[in-house]
Amino acid sequence: MFEQSFIPSAIGSSQADRSLAKSARGRQTQLGHPAANLFCRDMLGRGGATPLAEVFQVLSGMLAEHPGLATEEVTAGEALDRLGTAPITAPEDLPAHPRSVMDGYAVRAADTFGASASLPAYLTISGEVKMGEMPLHGPAPTECYRIATGGLLPPGTDAVVMLEHTVTADDNVLEVLKPVAPGGNIIARGDDVRTGEVLLPAGHRFRPCDLGLLAGLGIQKLQVFRQPRVGIISTGDEIVPPEQNPPPGKIRDMNMAGLTAMVYQQGAIPLNYGIVGDNEQAFVAQLEKALAECDLILFSGGSSVGVGDLGERVLSRLTDPGILLHGVAIKPGKPVIIAAHGHKPVFGLPGHPVSAAAAFALLVRPVLARLAGLHSGQAKDGEGFPIDLPRPLGSAILQRNLNSAAGRTDLVPVRLETQADGTLGAIPVLGKSSALSTLVRSQGWIIIAAHLQGLSAGSEVAVYNFEGLNCP
Amino acid sequence: MFEQSFIPSAIGSSQADRSLAKSARGRQTQLGHPAANLFCRDMLGRGGATPLAEVFQVLSGMLAEHPGLATEEVTAGEALDRLGTAPITAPEDLPAHPRSVMDGYAVRAADTFGASASLPAYLTISGEVKMGEMPLHGPAPTECYRIATGGLLPPGTDAVVMLEHTVTADDNVLEVLKPVAPGGNIIARGDDVRTGEVLLPAGHRFRPCDLGLLAGLGIQKLQVFRQPRVGIISTGDEIVPPEQNPPPGKIRDMNMAGLTAMVYQQGAIPLNYGIVGDNEQAFVAQLEKALAECDLILFSGGSSVGVGDLGERVLSRLTDPGILLHGVAIKPGKPVIIAAHGHKPVFGLPGHPVSAAAAFALLVRPVLARLAGLHSGQAKDGEGFPIDLPRPLGSAILQRNLNSAAGRTDLVPVRLETQADGTLGAIPVLGKSSALSTLVRSQGWIIIAAHLQGLSAGSEVAVYNFEGLNCP
Repeated sequence: MFEQSFIPSAIGSSQADRSLAKSARGRQTQLGHPAANLFCRDMLGRGGATPLAEVFQVLSGMLAEHPGLATEEVTAGEALDRLGTAPITAPEDLPAHPRSVMDGYAVRAADTFGASASLPAYLTISGEVKMGEMPLHGPAPTECYRIATGGLLPPGTDAVVMLEHTVTADDNVLEVLKPVAPGGNIIARGDDVRTGEVLLPAGHRFRPCDLGLLAGLGIQKLQVFRQPRVGIISTGDEIVPPEQNPPPGKIRDMNMAGLTAMVYQQGAIPLNYGIVGDNEQAFVAQLEKALAECDLILFSGGSSVGVGDLGERVLSRLTDPGILLHGVAIKPGKPVIIAAHGHKPVFGLPGHPVSAAAAFALLVRPVLARLAGLHSGQAKDGEGFPIDLPRPLGSAILQRNLNSAAGRTDLVPVRLETQADGTLGAIPVLGKSSALSTLVRSQGWIIIAAHLQGLSAGSEVAVYNFEGLNCP
Repeated sequence: MFEQSFIPSAIGSSQADRSLAKSARGRQTQLGHPAANLFCRDMLGRGGATPLAEVFQVLSGMLAEHPGLATEEVTAGEALDRLGTAPITAPEDLPAHPRSVMDGYAVRAADTFGASASLPAYLTISGEVKMGEMPLHGPAPTECYRIATGGLLPPGTDAVVMLEHTVTADDNVLEVLKPVAPGGNIIARGDDVRTGEVLLPAGHRFRPCDLGLLAGLGIQKLQVFRQPRVGIISTGDEIVPPEQNPPPGKIRDMNMAGLTAMVYQQGAIPLNYGIVGDNEQAFVAQLEKALAECDLILFSGGSSVGVGDLGERVLSRLTDPGILLHGVAIKPGKPVIIAAHGHKPVFGLPGHPVSAAAAFALLVRPVLARLAGLHSGQAKDGEGFPIDLPRPLGSAILQRNLNSAAGRTDLVPVRLETQADGTLGAIPVLGKSSALSTLVRSQGWIIIAAHLQGLSAGSEVAVYNFEGLNCP
């Protein structure tokens, strides 16, 4: 396996491609070097890196024909953050009867017209509305009933005078100091919600206020999209589970823990398919299992175009239509393989944990979000979804110059620190993509778009959290 | 109970206070009205509304002496979004051995000095590093070993030449086209993390990248603060559980469902103590139970200064030191009671669901966040925590003028809609605070600060989500 991958076709970056192809061509002329043809072929193939915008198009295309996830019924208590499958319409009026929204007196509004502090209207207090009871009788003209917030308006009355605008002259006589208009301080039948009204569109993610309103309408069961099941596999002979003490030469798996938490934060269900060594058979077995059981599969390691190439071989063997692209023009995170098996997306993520996190944030997150609410006609996250960048945490002022290759999208981890002038500064935390501590020391990352060759100190930059949405 | 509350001391708003007190004084002079003294007394008491900034001070003071929540041990897999109780230090170096971060050849860097495409350095490929194994021997000078990303650097070597900068002349002879510096393309022992280094401060909220790094270090158990337990009670004779068909005069409880979800979104544990009617004994029984079992208690309804005043009576009876304030200068959400029992905060929230949501977002959320990480020395949410506004979702352009009383903080629900000029517009969704549909039709709310008397159409406004943080 090692030998096989060490052919010169294993090229790392498109820039390297260019310079190497050039030097290879030069060498072919000068030295007739036999590797030159291989270099040239690779220029068109997997050696390159696809620009992020094109990758988004590939991902959108992959999802366009997706039949959508199955649906399931949950109780309202389980529906927080789940996506509804269909529009929800009101089964009844809310409120069902006109109610007072203030503490005061239920009146005929006309009886208060012209009232003022110096010339109050006098009304007889002839009764009261009991909370939680339907008043069957109401006050006669020039009479009023005591009523509390939420009390039902008694027959004959059309407004409530606020307590604050009254004085009780004695137990039975009320002075009204300010007139009230008909409908004043009440909520009429259906003022909140009308029968048949569409309350929430299909694909809506249920928020606390939504669940409150649905409770008010007695809607206790909701049809939601099933949460995407995401299979996660770690690959590499050097990887042991975190609970093991790694023998010399091995390291503990960091990607399973990180990716599991990232998947969970996106509202999906992470499923751990364990660690497979650089062993094609074991990998095939676990990937087959994951493909049968999950809606989306992530594996980390085995996607580098260098040693192994295990991911590419296994995906070619197991998936149909197969590999859509290999190599994305992002840094970190370049050695990503994206494949599809039927409608199931498979992402081969880099083994370096920072690269895996970057590829997750930029590529997996939007696909997961779209999967979660596909065919709802509404799935979006506010900014050009289906496939787009997450919403920034906020903005800050970049504290040093950053360079980047044009055509490549860079993610740079930053620490946020309030500067002497009171502005929030973004300080790049540079480090190798194998060093996860660079992320741990950071609060988020900034993006250097593909069309830029860097960012200058002093620029205002949007700061994104590592996972995308939902993360404090 | 109804009678008792209908004394004129039940004053609604500070504005009403002022005008009424004035009119009452006027009336006293003119008419010698007997209620005048009561009005005046109320000016100093509960009839008023405390400005939000002062309320934050009261809340901060209440929490200053709090002993903090208990701690508990969880597995790393359960620790996402939990807050660590103590700083976490690295028990070992990461990596434990120098490793390659590229696919290529392990070399003595000096052997590559001066190499170029036209004048390559020639090295003999004398071996390879097996992934996951500790290389016991290394290449001799002018020799090299094949090495893959993650492979351990063999003895004698100090750098890795990238595959892309080499050409294999034949199976055993490597042409190096570009020199590499000592330490190039490797991660040295401890480059990621050094033994004893503080990785995460006390009070840190564990993110996916943190859990990844902790997995890499074999840290599988974490000490975290217990999640706050929040007891929730709904009050009111007119309230029935959402699963019941309300008889005439009654309505279904919306606040239990809404508040439960809001508490959950803050990472706390909501506990449902059910509905108590306007019945002091039932309320006392449930509140006593909740005070014994929870870290913070919310009840909704019974906090209006109008009918009932049940909350105030019950809190006076059950809590010590008792009621800290009654009435906050916010709209909606004014009729809030804040009490403390020992160190346990108790919030009496308005019965109107929009008002309850506003009071939760402004008052309960920051207290919950602070409770969750008290005494960690680190609890913060990025912007002036302990007691502060949540982080905005983003900003938008207000589409109409809004008025507000000076001294009062207003929350106005807004719908976000892209305008013809491409900017994001915030369109106020006006409605009664009893109409939860106004929130359901909105995407967030904007805040009119206490020192402002309104906002003009065309202003840029920060848009907050309803619950505070964490909500997509």
